[in-house]
Amino acid sequence: MGKTTLKEFEAVFPLLVDELMGALESYKISPEAAAWYRRVLEHNTVGGKCNRGMSVVDTYSILTGKDKLDDTEYLRSAILGWCTELLQAYFLVADDIMDSSKTRRGSPCWYLHEGVGMIAINDAFMLEAAIYVLLKKHFRQESYYVDLLELFHETTFQTELGQLLDLITAPEDRVDLSKFSLEKHSFIVIFKTAYYSFYLPVALAMYMAGIATPENLKQAQDVLIPLGEYFQIQDDYLDCYGDPEHIGKIGTDIKDNKCGWLINQALAIATPEQREILDSNYGKKDDEAEARVKKVFVELDLEKRYQDYEEAVVGKIRKMIDNVDESSGLKKEVLTSFLNKIYKRSK
Amino acid sequence: MGKTTLKEFEAVFPLLVDELMGALESYKISPEAAAWYRRVLEHNTVGGKCNRGMSVVDTYSILTGKDKLDDTEYLRSAILGWCTELLQAYFLVADDIMDSSKTRRGSPCWYLHEGVGMIAINDAFMLEAAIYVLLKKHFRQESYYVDLLELFHETTFQTELGQLLDLITAPEDRVDLSKFSLEKHSFIVIFKTAYYSFYLPVALAMYMAGIATPENLKQAQDVLIPLGEYFQIQDDYLDCYGDPEHIGKIGTDIKDNKCGWLINQALAIATPEQREILDSNYGKKDDEAEARVKKVFVELDLEKRYQDYEEAVVGKIRKMIDNVDESSGLKKEVLTSFLNKIYKRSK
Ligand SMILES: [Mg+2]
Ligand SMILES: [Mg+2]
Ligand SMILES: [Mg+2]
Ligand SMILES: [Mg+2]
Ligand SMILES: [Mg+2]
Ligand SMILES: [Mg+2]
Repeated sequence: MGKTTLKEFEAVFPLLVDELMGALESYKISPEAAAWYRRVLEHNTVGGKCNRGMSVVDTYSILTGKDKLDDTEYLRSAILGWCTELLQAYFLVADDIMDSSKTRRGSPCWYLHEGVGMIAINDAFMLEAAIYVLLKKHFRQESYYVDLLELFHETTFQTELGQLLDLITAPEDRVDLSKFSLEKHSFIVIFKTAYYSFYLPVALAMYMAGIATPENLKQAQDVLIPLGEYFQIQDDYLDCYGDPEHIGKIGTDIKDNKCGWLINQALAIATPEQREILDSNYGKKDDEAEARVKKVFVELDLEKRYQDYEEAVVGKIRKMIDNVDESSGLKKEVLTSFLNKIYKRSK
Repeated sequence: MGKTTLKEFEAVFPLLVDELMGALESYKISPEAAAWYRRVLEHNTVGGKCNRGMSVVDTYSILTGKDKLDDTEYLRSAILGWCTELLQAYFLVADDIMDSSKTRRGSPCWYLHEGVGMIAINDAFMLEAAIYVLLKKHFRQESYYVDLLELFHETTFQTELGQLLDLITAPEDRVDLSKFSLEKHSFIVIFKTAYYSFYLPVALAMYMAGIATPENLKQAQDVLIPLGEYFQIQDDYLDCYGDPEHIGKIGTDIKDNKCGWLINQALAIATPEQREILDSNYGKKDDEAEARVKKVFVELDLEKRYQDYEEAVVGKIRKMIDNVDESSGLKKEVLTSFLNKIYKRSK
């Protein structure tokens, strides 16, 4: 099945920026404000891997069985993909402020750019608003238009709930491991990541392909949510155990007091002595403290624990995919293609 | 015509908080996160004058000619009113961060509350998200549901555009009066305030009353946007010339480098000498600089200029209201009731 490329997908974005600029023109907004918005859109939406956005196009191809989409279908599925990327951009611009992050995709975070600062908050709002301008322009005539709106609303709310729980469980400046738990970790990961990264792109493609019955949506969600949870647990694992050469960054979850999978596993099985080491060293911006935490992780053999988890969850997900009912148009291949991209990845 | 009271209107809000808590329960979110969201909703949405929210109920009463709404109609129009208040809460929580404001409605701004900080950004997002949860729950079955969604989307975008132009024209920390102009002031005021404060509540009531034809919406908008602009110009005037006893605060627009009506009028007519005084004293956090600016305002007789503006614009608006075509259900009384609340107010 022909997969879209980043180059093809990125080629659509300038058209959407032009449309948004056209919307501003109809309001007769000043050229400085329009130029600002263009910069916000271009800087924060383009330049990533676009896995989420491209997966809308690829899922639509699989669902319709078309090796090559015609131009209109490509454009329309890519627009839904870009709406997913805009939603992510909205979250990331704000997340970087809330986390006091310094860099994103190798350049300073948007709010740290000269002259931006807290205007970045309104910029984040306007990245979200772009979604609804584009959906209205391109999908207003469709019977599933209101479903698209509700899907974006609900996914946005879910992601914000996950973000909220993350923020109050693991504030960067106040370490309290007693707030952590595997149950909270699971909630945070599912709400903050899985819904918008895995379920949203597939559901969008399903609406566009005309197969988004409640049953099909539920079948997709039942697989994609655990898959998304697995993806994020793998991300947490790679942050500590991945090769920085491969993942393109040096992990900082321990120093950043992240409520990640490894620390939650460790807390669940640590001896009182190990627990004390974790309590007094986790979340410290200090190489030696980090090394002491990692030593406990090694003692607890979390690498092995992760590998066991991975085999178990992948087995479970494969079984769920096997049991998917394809008779109403959903295809197992949509789900296996996600799983295959993730399983045993090293970056 | 019976006007709703703040007490009646506020009595609806706890029901909506309960519904939102119910939505979180269905997601099985932790009690801490639910308690946080409750606090965000209650602190930031309740406690103001609720003029915008109550005007949905009052407009609906006028349009339907009912002196007393039955419980269901009251509740439903009040829900649309609270959605308007939630939209405002979303903007204000973020605006206070962007403006480095200290207090709001007599208590510290939300982001300055103990333990909140930049989490307030996600809290703002979740105030907005509440709108769509409530609209879905209460209006999903209505033929105008999608119109409500689009109206909120568009009004949100318009307000954000106004905010953007305000932020880049009048950053608090870099005074440059050459960026100001009466044209920009007009755009900022209309987009940042008039759409959501005046047009939105009336349009919501018009949809609910079943009279929201494109012609009627346009008639309402054509009056309400200049009315909203007049309201904000009056606000700018009162900031400098109002009695602090009446308006409940001491104006700070001059010190805050606000792109307000007075400074823009002054810039349009100042002599080169006066201009120099304005350039070197506007936007300074300093009583003497502020006094020098106010002295120029007195020399230019801006009070008289404001009074002339007020008489002219009110005359124009009255004429527009006179010409409103009531044959498809819009009522002039909706518009005059807004004008009467505003004209010559001192607070
Ligand atoms: Mg972050
Ligand atoms: Mg974060
Ligand atoms: Mg990570
Ligand atoms: Mg402000
Ligand atoms: Mg402001
Ligand atoms: Mg004011």
